[in-house]
Amino acid sequence: MTVPPPPAAPRFEPRDPHWAEKVRASFERQSVMTLIGAALADIRPGWCEIRLPYREDLCQQHGFFHAGITATVVDSAAGYAGFSLMPPGSSVLSVEFKINLLSPGDGELLIATGEVIKPGKNLVICRGDAYVVKGMKTTHCATMQQTLMTMHGKPDSEETQK
Amino acid sequence: MTVPPPPAAPRFEPRDPHWAEKVRASFERQSVMTLIGAALADIRPGWCEIRLPYREDLCQQHGFFHAGITATVVDSAAGYAGFSLMPPGSSVLSVEFKINLLSPGDGELLIATGEVIKPGKNLVICRGDAYVVKGMKTTHCATMQQTLMTMHGKPDSEETQK
Amino acid sequence: MTVPPPPAAPRFEPRDPHWAEKVRASFERQSVMTLIGAALADIRPGWCEIRLPYREDLCQQHGFFHAGITATVVDSAAGYAGFSLMPPGSSVLSVEFKINLLSPGDGELLIATGEVIKPGKNLVICRGDAYVVKGMKTTHCATMQQTLMTMHGKPDSEETQK
Amino acid sequence: MTVPPPPAAPRFEPRDPHWAEKVRASFERQSVMTLIGAALADIRPGWCEIRLPYREDLCQQHGFFHAGITATVVDSAAGYAGFSLMPPGSSVLSVEFKINLLSPGDGELLIATGEVIKPGKNLVICRGDAYVVKGMKTTHCATMQQTLMTMHGKPDSEETQK
Repeated sequence: MTVPPPPAAPRFEPRDPHWAEKVRASFERQSVMTLIGAALADIRPGWCEIRLPYREDLCQQHGFFHAGITATVVDSAAGYAGFSLMPPGSSVLSVEFKINLLSPGDGELLIATGEVIKPGKNLVICRGDAYVVKGMKTTHCATMQQTLMTMHGKPDSEETQK
Repeated sequence: MTVPPPPAAPRFEPRDPHWAEKVRASFERQSVMTLIGAALADIRPGWCEIRLPYREDLCQQHGFFHAGITATVVDSAAGYAGFSLMPPGSSVLSVEFKINLLSPGDGELLIATGEVIKPGKNLVICRGDAYVVKGMKTTHCATMQQTLMTMHGKPDSEETQK
Repeated sequence: MTVPPPPAAPRFEPRDPHWAEKVRASFERQSVMTLIGAALADIRPGWCEIRLPYREDLCQQHGFFHAGITATVVDSAAGYAGFSLMPPGSSVLSVEFKINLLSPGDGELLIATGEVIKPGKNLVICRGDAYVVKGMKTTHCATMQQTLMTMHGKPDSEETQK
Repeated sequence: MTVPPPPAAPRFEPRDPHWAEKVRASFERQSVMTLIGAALADIRPGWCEIRLPYREDLCQQHGFFHAGITATVVDSAAGYAGFSLMPPGSSVLSVEFKINLLSPGDGELLIATGEVIKPGKNLVICRGDAYVVKGMKTTHCATMQQTLMTMHGKPDSEETQK
């Protein structure tokens, strides 16, 4: 299979003109992304992609990506898909998520995508997916359903507040 | 609150006499636990505790434990609670989990506990929890429901097979 | 096993002096409870029990309680556990739930319990369980994690508003 | 919005030549479907649609479809999507599901769809959705992630065994 591309036209209208830069700035502040070596590959209104190259120190006991690491990048991809649609002066919080591990995370690259299913005023519901690339083969290895909360009046950073 | 202690008497009978050492050996092979600095604090039949001290490189954008890192240690704690009850010559796989983030992961220590709810022959259902300790205060910050699969005839490591 | 009793002392303080009667009145208005024959057996602050006797028209293809019917009564039990703690003039909404079916719903009575894990201002996180009774044997047959939303300023019924 | 149609070409190959009739026969035996008035509208390999007209006795306290009833038809739609791909002589069991309620179930018809995401040998992972139709308007009101187990060697009914 191949990783599904982002929607040709965004399904949703962002409410913050600085949606892309605020997502990139917030991602930069997620220190765990630096620790594991993840990169923000693409961001669109209601859609996000994060890439994580394989490293031997990201694994479970059989040498594959640990389910929690897969969950970490999918949670962030879906979270930033949601954050891209939130109004100025707000921040994003993961309320809960559920992830099914469809196949072992066996490969040299993990691609996590997130997209908004329903952008409510307070709660935003997202879907996330992970694909693992091994040589020429791409395998759908995880799928997530996630609930986010918009923290109105609590900007994501002090700088954003100015 | 305080972190609930393990059950006074184990609720379940392990089927593998080497249950404790196989869990410890498997935990040692989870390279991501070393990366983040997590330690296996306690293991009983059907019960497990993992501890993770705070570090600045484990965080989301507000400087708290990233939800995915919390999920990583709770997934492992619940997974090893389940693995402790599995028969010799088998390994453990996370099929899926669902986690609610109850409070921000704001503190200097994260304590993750896992316990078996239903030890089926193939599927094992577990509960996991996370508590964050800040000074004298302990807060219940996450709760998880998890489904594991027993991989019969697939030992956790080659050494175990001998 | 036996069904765990409600906590000896309630863990939470209700914010509405009419918590018990508003829960009972709301349950009466859930027409599907009458259709399936479910009864509100007990209600405490942050805790609720619903009972559903077996009927041949509540089943899946093997003659056991349908998973969706089990989910229906556990969702209501957990929802009313949450509603009991909500302030006057508000109503309750299920945001999402996740249920594990631990054993077939094979028996003459289903007992669903719900309890509040974390009573937030807007979001309330609950746990629900189902037990099936067959002769002298009680089996834990389902467990649920649920997220509720408090709808502030939207009373559960017009009568309550007066 | 409109309800997404089934895939133009099935993504999966059924392993049982009698896949459609065994699904229809099993649905007939789900007595709760008769109780609530649900109908099997369409079945394809790895895909299923169930329709449920509104009735006043299927509701929660505000007169909308009860979340548990929505879960009941989505669980069955996704379950039969999975069962359609299972080999002869097997039956299907819901291991767990997680449902997000996206909008109130306010309308005169509920349309539930289910599709297979990953058809494993033992575990089958599905997605389910519900749409509520009110006049000319169709609203996506729920989305589900579900894990099924194939019960090998346990036919769905005695008749099938002959």
